[in-house]
Amino acid sequence: MTKKRAVILSSGGLDSTTVLAMAQQQGYECYCLSFDYGQRHSAELDASVKIADVMGAKEHRIAKLDLSCFGGSALTDMDIAVPEDEEDMGNIPITYVPARNTVFLSYALAWAEVLEASEIFIGVNAVDYSGYPDCRPDFIAAFESLANLATRSGVEGLKLSIQAPLMKMSKAQIIKRGLELGVDYSLTVSCYQADDKGLACGRCESCRLRKQGFVEAKTADTTRYQPV
Amino acid sequence: MTKKRAVILSSGGLDSTTVLAMAQQQGYECYCLSFDYGQRHSAELDASVKIADVMGAKEHRIAKLDLSCFGGSALTDMDIAVPEDEEDMGNIPITYVPARNTVFLSYALAWAEVLEASEIFIGVNAVDYSGYPDCRPDFIAAFESLANLATRSGVEGLKLSIQAPLMKMSKAQIIKRGLELGVDYSLTVSCYQADDKGLACGRCESCRLRKQGFVEAKTADTTRYQPV
Repeated sequence: MTKKRAVILSSGGLDSTTVLAMAQQQGYECYCLSFDYGQRHSAELDASVKIADVMGAKEHRIAKLDLSCFGGSALTDMDIAVPEDEEDMGNIPITYVPARNTVFLSYALAWAEVLEASEIFIGVNAVDYSGYPDCRPDFIAAFESLANLATRSGVEGLKLSIQAPLMKMSKAQIIKRGLELGVDYSLTVSCYQADDKGLACGRCESCRLRKQGFVEAKTADTTRYQPV
Repeated sequence: MTKKRAVILSSGGLDSTTVLAMAQQQGYECYCLSFDYGQRHSAELDASVKIADVMGAKEHRIAKLDLSCFGGSALTDMDIAVPEDEEDMGNIPITYVPARNTVFLSYALAWAEVLEASEIFIGVNAVDYSGYPDCRPDFIAAFESLANLATRSGVEGLKLSIQAPLMKMSKAQIIKRGLELGVDYSLTVSCYQADDKGLACGRCESCRLRKQGFVEAKTADTTRYQPV
């Protein structure tokens, strides 16, 4: 029997790597998709390549995006500083990239259609990222509806599912699940300002959430940090 | 009073140029967005630049896409021939690019969010392009729902509308409306295989629909064709 195919949105970070492990464990043939969208550093992309290889993905592609041309986020706009204190941030973090997950899912949809994949996996999480509009269950459900109207597959009655298995998990739960599935978190890069070797700053919002996750999971933090 | 802003998906073709004229006439400050997505020729993009300028758009940007990496369409895949006979085509034309309008609208959404625009205009048409899943009213409605869940604006209660004013118009009706609004169709390029000067082949599906539109509108066809 042919394996069912899944497109996995893979950033090289902790969450999406756990999602890849979950999809593999469920028996999908995994096609990992990463984006070069004008990030400040390439460490995440380097990590995504290595992770897809080590974890046995069927294929890994990096699509180039041009979202930085619209500006509006610290992650792509060099004129906006990455905030290190929680007080700097309003309800919606400045690190939010406009319509990012909509764009990412649209690309995943294009590839899923060509591959005739039945699933798209995305590592969004409504617990730690409650301020991001496009990390909410309603958004994922709306994209699934759209996807099934947008494509040839939808017209032909094939159903495409958008899977967001981390949606309601805490960082500690995600880490525990990943460790059960054999994920090597030292390969993953979550830091907003990792250096070119992928070493984490330990101070940004993403680092703080990740550190706290390892503490709460009561397991060793295998993250590779920059020397202090 | 500040003018309301609209993002206009602008291909340099007949339909989207008519949509730009309609948005201008409704008093919007128009931000035109075009895509460099690995088209076979740059004539459409050259046309979109000139049209935005001549028609008084506030700004025009060209975003680079990388959809050709997924293959699957004659418009981006050099190994698939563009069909010239209707019999070559099934229900869904081979010139359909996977998830194209979903991707285009996602980019428009990103820009609309940064601009705080209240509208996105798209020239899709369910009459001539009934075979394209992402040219149907249901698809546009689903994207509008998604857009209002996906963004900061949606969270803050601002409503974004997706306007598809050509949806139920015939090509002849579109041409008549554009002429009333002063559109110079000789500037527009619709042909799937225009040459580098933007001259149309006169034979592809897009040329045939356009020619027929001028005939039915009982007006001179100002399209610039290649010498026979």
